[in-house]
Amino acid sequence: MSYETLLYEVSDYVLTITLNRPDRLNAFTGTMMNELIDAFDKADADDDVRAIIVTGAGRAFCAGADLSEGTKTFDFAARADRPDKQGTPQRPDGGIDYSHESVRDGGGRVSLRIYECLKPVIAAINGAAVGVGATMLLPMDIRIASSDARFGFVFNRRGITPEACSSWFLPRAVGISQALEWTYSGRVFPAQEALEGRLVKQVVAPDALMDTARALAREIADNSAPVSVALTRQMMWRMLGADHPMEAHKVDSRSIYARGRMQDVKEGISSFLEKRPPVFTEKVSQDMPDFVPWWEPRPYK
Amino acid sequence: MSYETLLYEVSDYVLTITLNRPDRLNAFTGTMMNELIDAFDKADADDDVRAIIVTGAGRAFCAGADLSEGTKTFDFAARADRPDKQGTPQRPDGGIDYSHESVRDGGGRVSLRIYECLKPVIAAINGAAVGVGATMLLPMDIRIASSDARFGFVFNRRGITPEACSSWFLPRAVGISQALEWTYSGRVFPAQEALEGRLVKQVVAPDALMDTARALAREIADNSAPVSVALTRQMMWRMLGADHPMEAHKVDSRSIYARGRMQDVKEGISSFLEKRPPVFTEKVSQDMPDFVPWWEPRPYK
Amino acid sequence: MSYETLLYEVSDYVLTITLNRPDRLNAFTGTMMNELIDAFDKADADDDVRAIIVTGAGRAFCAGADLSEGTKTFDFAARADRPDKQGTPQRPDGGIDYSHESVRDGGGRVSLRIYECLKPVIAAINGAAVGVGATMLLPMDIRIASSDARFGFVFNRRGITPEACSSWFLPRAVGISQALEWTYSGRVFPAQEALEGRLVKQVVAPDALMDTARALAREIADNSAPVSVALTRQMMWRMLGADHPMEAHKVDSRSIYARGRMQDVKEGISSFLEKRPPVFTEKVSQDMPDFVPWWEPRPYK
Repeated sequence: MSYETLLYEVSDYVLTITLNRPDRLNAFTGTMMNELIDAFDKADADDDVRAIIVTGAGRAFCAGADLSEGTKTFDFAARADRPDKQGTPQRPDGGIDYSHESVRDGGGRVSLRIYECLKPVIAAINGAAVGVGATMLLPMDIRIASSDARFGFVFNRRGITPEACSSWFLPRAVGISQALEWTYSGRVFPAQEALEGRLVKQVVAPDALMDTARALAREIADNSAPVSVALTRQMMWRMLGADHPMEAHKVDSRSIYARGRMQDVKEGISSFLEKRPPVFTEKVSQDMPDFVPWWEPRPYK
Repeated sequence: MSYETLLYEVSDYVLTITLNRPDRLNAFTGTMMNELIDAFDKADADDDVRAIIVTGAGRAFCAGADLSEGTKTFDFAARADRPDKQGTPQRPDGGIDYSHESVRDGGGRVSLRIYECLKPVIAAINGAAVGVGATMLLPMDIRIASSDARFGFVFNRRGITPEACSSWFLPRAVGISQALEWTYSGRVFPAQEALEGRLVKQVVAPDALMDTARALAREIADNSAPVSVALTRQMMWRMLGADHPMEAHKVDSRSIYARGRMQDVKEGISSFLEKRPPVFTEKVSQDMPDFVPWWEPRPYK
Repeated sequence: MSYETLLYEVSDYVLTITLNRPDRLNAFTGTMMNELIDAFDKADADDDVRAIIVTGAGRAFCAGADLSEGTKTFDFAARADRPDKQGTPQRPDGGIDYSHESVRDGGGRVSLRIYECLKPVIAAINGAAVGVGATMLLPMDIRIASSDARFGFVFNRRGITPEACSSWFLPRAVGISQALEWTYSGRVFPAQEALEGRLVKQVVAPDALMDTARALAREIADNSAPVSVALTRQMMWRMLGADHPMEAHKVDSRSIYARGRMQDVKEGISSFLEKRPPVFTEKVSQDMPDFVPWWEPRPYK
């Protein structure tokens, strides 16, 4: 796998995606957006990937949107790569066609792709995570920070607004009060404050960061049936949006019924009764039950 | 009240339900499911029950599904008590009729019954709460753990998936990150970790567990109007699924209007002004306001 | 601005609203309800208001509903100011017209108004916040308490039920378990317990309360674009009710596009690159993007 802005390395069932523009503090670009989406596509299709770690090369995790276009950064009409006349897609009625990729928020496209992911996603935040570098963390499942990390939802200080679907993810992760406090002022804050506000699970010494993230990935990859893990990820995230536990009950009933007769379950029970580690053989690429997806696709429209 | 798998004891307005198969670590069976549903039905209908405590006999709270059928445990077609030809209900079009009780997730049927309950439900977790023993705790209102308790959402280690509507309840109780961390790996963890992760409110010494739970039940039973408590339980749980505070406002307005003229309110205000304990006389069985239920029933379909 | 029950003071972009019936512990009345709604209307329309602090005069924040009508307080038919024959509005079919202001829960009307607010709202809780004095805090964004504060969701002890949309706001602020524990028993509890239960962000010495609240308001008013802040408030609160992050993505895409070409963004980026404080000039009263409101109005019906 060769990317311009990312490293993509699979080892022993764990994929590590490294944001890799260290000389630009891994600032986010259109290329990085496309490559991240592609990397998650590849990861979902690859049965050798049972858990994903996302980290940054060098001293930052991601310093936010690349500002090399200066004050034109968010002005789609003025940007060199998006001249308005050609670049802004229009609907037949003359309005802006926001469903077109070129005017959709780029951070949000990444967040929505991560939301759909079938593998556990662990963020290993090695340094500054600012702007989209902070909001892209939110659809990841578990966040571990180095004591060198710092965070900033800086949008209001730049005159724009929080993006990457963070208005959906952030209040669910840290509560509405904490979400508003951090986004209102856009203040940059240290790892310890992120821990106290429950944005991250744990703060560790810089040189313990990757080992901590790998141990977490290891525990999942070594002990849990990959198809079960994929189903669990989608069940938990999607039921956050369900209005009644009955919606979960419908999926649970189908899932227990469909999984209950599978070889992995016989192995899971046998290995438990025999007090030995399980050896699961079913694959996410082939063995997902036929009631998946149980959700309606949600295209931009 | 005589059950095969439960003890049901009412004393001084507090019902204690004890999972009672101590020689099997209170493992969950079809009989236990039916008896739990029946016990909550009885509790709701009994005005001598103002709060409910759920605990386990012996050293476990509930060790999960009874595995005496071994690898067939979740294989409805293979189980002795559910031969497929006779046992799997079919729809006219030949598909599986998941709405039939026999193929609905049993833990979920218990969770949904607890969700509908009109009395406060306090879990007193005396020992291992694993699998459905952990997920059945989630629709209970307040969880107190003995320091001997341990917890495990072990489903992915067995090849199945989290059930009992836990994908709806768990992220709402502990946050999506913690929910995923525990369910991905299925690791068994101690009471202290449950406390730090906010799965339980409090960890106490084993011999203080029941007294702590009873004190909490006592405080509600002695001070609060039972009809108010029943309404409060349904208002809070159901508004978790509402998309706008206006939904709460509609119920609040009807409730304040309907309750405001009732004897219990006059007693509540008088006792407060006279600085004495209130004596409430209205009953859940008779005096619920006529706007209840304000929700649409949500059958499995 | 002259109110009977409130003080309304704007200084250096920060509005302080003070509940001002100190001899009645700032007990809530119909007049206070109307004046609070009016004060938030004024604040939203005034570009000199960039943040709002709400506090109480004297030793209480707000002791709850004014009980000077005694046991008739919540009995709309019996109250001197609301005789049933004239006072209870009826629908053509003879039923009660709950959509009429006179039978809508008054606390809820305040909560819904605060929910719609376009400016950050900080509660500075100086003393007892009980009944509606506690529930009106919930739609405020950030809560700071004096160590003298105490809290009580006392409704069930009075025979009524939690109001002011608290069944929607409270579980989202503190979790369903904590919400139920506090509302079931109606116990009054100290500031420290409110902190541990995450009802308040911080507890400070009484004489540090207003300075702490003002510092928080100051940070927002001095650093963030007011239009960004107004959008952020509505995005975060409203996405709490959205069932899928795609709903956020739609708003984010429009917002980044609309804001991206504005002067405030050029100033935000320039000031960042030049390492100087930003000077934002766009106004909430004039410069909100045209996709606002993106939500359907939600009238009582």
